Amino acid sequence: PFYAGSGLDVWTMMNQAAAEVGAVNLGQGFMSFPPQCFIRRAAQEALDQNVHNQYAPPRGRPALLEQIAARFSPRLGRQLDQASEISVHAGANEALLSVFTAFLTHGQDHEVILMEPAFDQYAPNIAMAGGKPVYVPLRVLAAADKVISSDDWKIDMAELEAAVSPKTRIIVLNTPHNPVGKVFTRDELAQIGAISERHNLLILADEVYEHLTYGRDHVSIASLPRMWERTVTVGSAGKLLGVTGWRVGWAIGPRALIQPTLAAHTRIVFTTNTPLQEGVASAMRQAVSNGFYEAQRQEYERRRNRLMEIFDDVGLPYVVPDGAYYLLVNASAVRVPQDYLFPEAISSRGPNFRLAYFFIREFGVSGIPPAEFYCEPHRYLAGDYVRFAFCKTDEGLDAAAVALQKLK
Amino acid sequence: PFYAGSGLDVWTMMNQAAAEVGAVNLGQGFMSFPPQCFIRRAAQEALDQNVHNQYAPPRGRPALLEQIAARFSPRLGRQLDQASEISVHAGANEALLSVFTAFLTHGQDHEVILMEPAFDQYAPNIAMAGGKPVYVPLRVLAAADKVISSDDWKIDMAELEAAVSPKTRIIVLNTPHNPVGKVFTRDELAQIGAISERHNLLILADEVYEHLTYGRDHVSIASLPRMWERTVTVGSAGKLLGVTGWRVGWAIGPRALIQPTLAAHTRIVFTTNTPLQEGVASAMRQAVSNGFYEAQRQEYERRRNRLMEIFDDVGLPYVVPDGAYYLLVNASAVRVPQDYLFPEAISSRGPNFRLAYFFIREFGVSGIPPAEFYCEPHRYLAGDYVRFAFCKTDEGLDAAAVALQKLK
Ligand SMILES: CSCCC(=O)C(=O)O
Ligand SMILES: CSCCC(=O)C(=O)O
Repeated sequence: PFYAGSGLDVWTMMNQAAAEVGAVNLGQGFMSFPPQCFIRRAAQEALDQNVHNQYAPPRGRPALLEQIAARFSPRLGRQLDQASEISVHAGANEALLSVFTAFLTHGQDHEVILMEPAFDQYAPNIAMAGGKPVYVPLRVLAAADKVISSDDWKIDMAELEAAVSPKTRIIVLNTPHNPVGKVFTRDELAQIGAISERHNLLILADEVYEHLTYGRDHVSIASLPRMWERTVTVGSAGKLLGVTGWRVGWAIGPRALIQPTLAAHTRIVFTTNTPLQEGVASAMRQAVSNGFYEAQRQEYERRRNRLMEIFDDVGLPYVVPDGAYYLLVNASAVRVPQDYLFPEAISSRGPNFRLAYFFIREFGVSGIPPAEFYCEPHRYLAGDYVRFAFCKTDEGLDAAAVALQKLK
Repeated sequence: PFYAGSGLDVWTMMNQAAAEVGAVNLGQGFMSFPPQCFIRRAAQEALDQNVHNQYAPPRGRPALLEQIAARFSPRLGRQLDQASEISVHAGANEALLSVFTAFLTHGQDHEVILMEPAFDQYAPNIAMAGGKPVYVPLRVLAAADKVISSDDWKIDMAELEAAVSPKTRIIVLNTPHNPVGKVFTRDELAQIGAISERHNLLILADEVYEHLTYGRDHVSIASLPRMWERTVTVGSAGKLLGVTGWRVGWAIGPRALIQPTLAAHTRIVFTTNTPLQEGVASAMRQAVSNGFYEAQRQEYERRRNRLMEIFDDVGLPYVVPDGAYYLLVNASAVRVPQDYLFPEAISSRGPNFRLAYFFIREFGVSGIPPAEFYCEPHRYLAGDYVRFAFCKTDEGLDAAAVALQKLK
């Protein structure tokens, strides 16, 4: 049987804790503002066509495959064949599970390398497919007293290579990185790529935040020399268009990798919902010409800067993110009283959960405890960080600013 | 790794073969007519609310849980608790996979009993979760020369009980049955239930066609004495509302069974798409009072009768279905010439696939070869049956009638 670890997933848990006291929710990475009108309307119009209300082909609707090919061909440096090199999934999460299911085998102790902190769904998805995660932490290489940027979080490439065993099948690479905000450099990607080549490993590139970088360029590892053949790149319409509830994602790679991924997908969910696939296709087509992507990027950069100011104002340092929409705040200056009362469900998950919960109860602002992004023996590496999301309205950020005044 | 058997799934394969020659598609069970206006509009209106464009709680949106509880409490004979006894899934298929994932264990040779013909996704879903399907065929107990009804397809209860081993965990029960159209009687359900009790097994009741029966009542096995505690009942909004592309399904059962099912779901897809969940909730609320369900049932009964007439007219016998929307036609009178040329992908899948393909090419009407619903050694039991769906427009059925004149 499959058990979701120790009870509730962190998302449901922190959303519930926030709702209980009406805290400003800067926890889970969903948008608290409405999607652009043209995006909603694209889905509404799709619903008028009967064919869009019935099963889509398991690989995805042709209109969406076409838009994915159009967007990612330049990014991956090759003309994508939409009939064989793309599959559409019920969210990026289901794309990840499909890849693990396709390439790991139960009973063979296959290993998958994760860089910590690692999005909390990776490890259970790997376990379901019969694999075992092996962890290599990003380490902060910076003087303790300087402003830390997401770029200071580094993978020790020797440590990464030492983690490879004869059982290793896949390296998961998340760039831009959740929760650190790190955008891996071309040089880092080349080194990771070289390791994957030396040991004949697949790269599973989770690039769901590829459209959100601040002052630097996102590079897809699949675009590096010889990397196409061993890489599956995963993306998300929910993130790209600000509609996390639509559950439309994709996987892109060579036919030899997409064919088994699609076979797994076909058995996991059979097919992805049709009207929102068509909505995404139409919205992506419109977004190419209406300037949406750059306007959205600038909006997120503005929100990032605003959230950094808010924490500057109350004197808590943070990791400056170069991508994605999360801010890792170092709350070690916050003192949790020894006798503070925590619900058992929080308390049992360690000091980092207690800290995030304390923020909710005392400051009325909810974040996510990054401890959930580490394996058990490494949870202490989450230290006193709390992750706050900035995919939120100005009103939400303003309310957080007011609430956090209590910190002064 | 996970391989989807011998190449393409039967659905994609037959849809492609039909499209190649513009055949009337009576194959896969999707509606060729538009959903009712109020259903489409319910989803369109949902998209206007920002919260409906973002992540739903993994268990499902409260409005939908409420509608599911309202519909199924009377059917299951108890007041359902929407906070613990229901989970919403990315289609009924993902609900099935979640249940298998929750209750089977890799490396323990857990067994699951399937009654053949069995919907083709069950076996790969069981395999992904680490289990092994064990097959008990429905057998036709009727004189060869009489009109066969779906009721003549019987499970030999002694054979079913003999199939139970110490490794058995689950019996899958599909009623109304795809593709036979059998609606299990209360007496049959009681006997299956008694076997599950004697051997302490779970029942996974796939009741996605519960709303479509013709002249007899659907009975949920979970409503029988003592069965609630060991049953998970799966349903589908796609089937209930005629929107197979929306990918919204559910699982209903006691907390002890739904909790692990939900935990698996949360890792498989995280959550189900929100706008269509809300659309389903609103449409189900409206359908209670606008008479939709009974009008829909009558429409399907009319379509069933029309399709039966069409085959009467050309002299091919069939199994009279009491539920669902498929007709199993016995095409043994159709002679496939010895030297007829088949693509290798069809030919390699045996005579039943060749027969269905022959129908497409020679009569311009596509069905599904039920051989795909049997395990390898039992494929011969599909005989000369081809399954035709009647969830299709009158124009489609008329076109099939004309095309099939060639049979005379
Ligand atoms: C399972 S939550 C989806 C990812 C995300 O939005 C987050 O990290 O907050
Ligand atoms: C995977 S196809 C979904 C079920 C169905 O519609 C069918 O049996 O045709």
